[in-house]
Amino acid sequence: MDQSEAREWLATALAEARAGLGEGGIPIGAALYGADGTLLGRGHNRRVQDGDPSMHAETAAFRAAGRQRSYRGTTMVTTLSPCWYCSGLVRQFGISRVVIGEAVTFRGGQDWLAGHGVEIVLLDDPECVDLMRAFIEHHPDLWNEDIGD
Amino acid sequence: MDQSEAREWLATALAEARAGLGEGGIPIGAALYGADGTLLGRGHNRRVQDGDPSMHAETAAFRAAGRQRSYRGTTMVTTLSPCWYCSGLVRQFGISRVVIGEAVTFRGGQDWLAGHGVEIVLLDDPECVDLMRAFIEHHPDLWNEDIGD
Repeated sequence: MDQSEAREWLATALAEARAGLGEGGIPIGAALYGADGTLLGRGHNRRVQDGDPSMHAETAAFRAAGRQRSYRGTTMVTTLSPCWYCSGLVRQFGISRVVIGEAVTFRGGQDWLAGHGVEIVLLDDPECVDLMRAFIEHHPDLWNEDIGD
Repeated sequence: MDQSEAREWLATALAEARAGLGEGGIPIGAALYGADGTLLGRGHNRRVQDGDPSMHAETAAFRAAGRQRSYRGTTMVTTLSPCWYCSGLVRQFGISRVVIGEAVTFRGGQDWLAGHGVEIVLLDDPECVDLMRAFIEHHPDLWNEDIGD
């Protein structure tokens, strides 16, 4: 895909991550885009805000998009490499592509997804890295809780 | 684990599945039990009821259990073999065991989980099979939507 489009979509996920941080939450954001580039849903991690451990950013964006008959051609954009839970979401529902802000602070199931035909676009975005580095440094317990460590 | 305890826990998941069916929903139920046998959370698929595609039964039970520091020793009980999304949930959060009502109408990530050290208890429960068979026969579109087919 076009790198400028990928970065534009990442900006939506980053805005979600920043909003989550502003609410005292874990700064991970995501957005689901349709095959035609329409924004279907966006969201951020809500573990702290809602006391809801299931609301990882990707699940929040998927949920916000509501019921869809097919995910063929859709793109999940996330500020952080998707964990097994969110990788499973992508595989089960046949989401075609994942745009990842960074996989430095956490490397999830991206290789597994690539092996199952999902297109992976890794952007190595420094702001995504900085957000997670600072958060993990200040709130290691919350971060470990969020990934079940 | 003790088969009679597994069947007792499955009864909780089955009650959830029946409740979902009674609401016009997809009849899959789940429950999360603690290492000491305490019921931590229970729930059922809520795609139809809430228009929420993320609320697979296992996610609903996980969510109902709220934030937990660790899932070591916990058991996810589900009426149906967990899809990739819910299998990813089990792996990511280190849920130790999955009790499965049936894997005849749908076979999810149970072998993948077993390969990653999760104990799998498959009960081959006829009521679980009947519930899903009848539902899939009458609502094939809803079922396919729910598994992204």
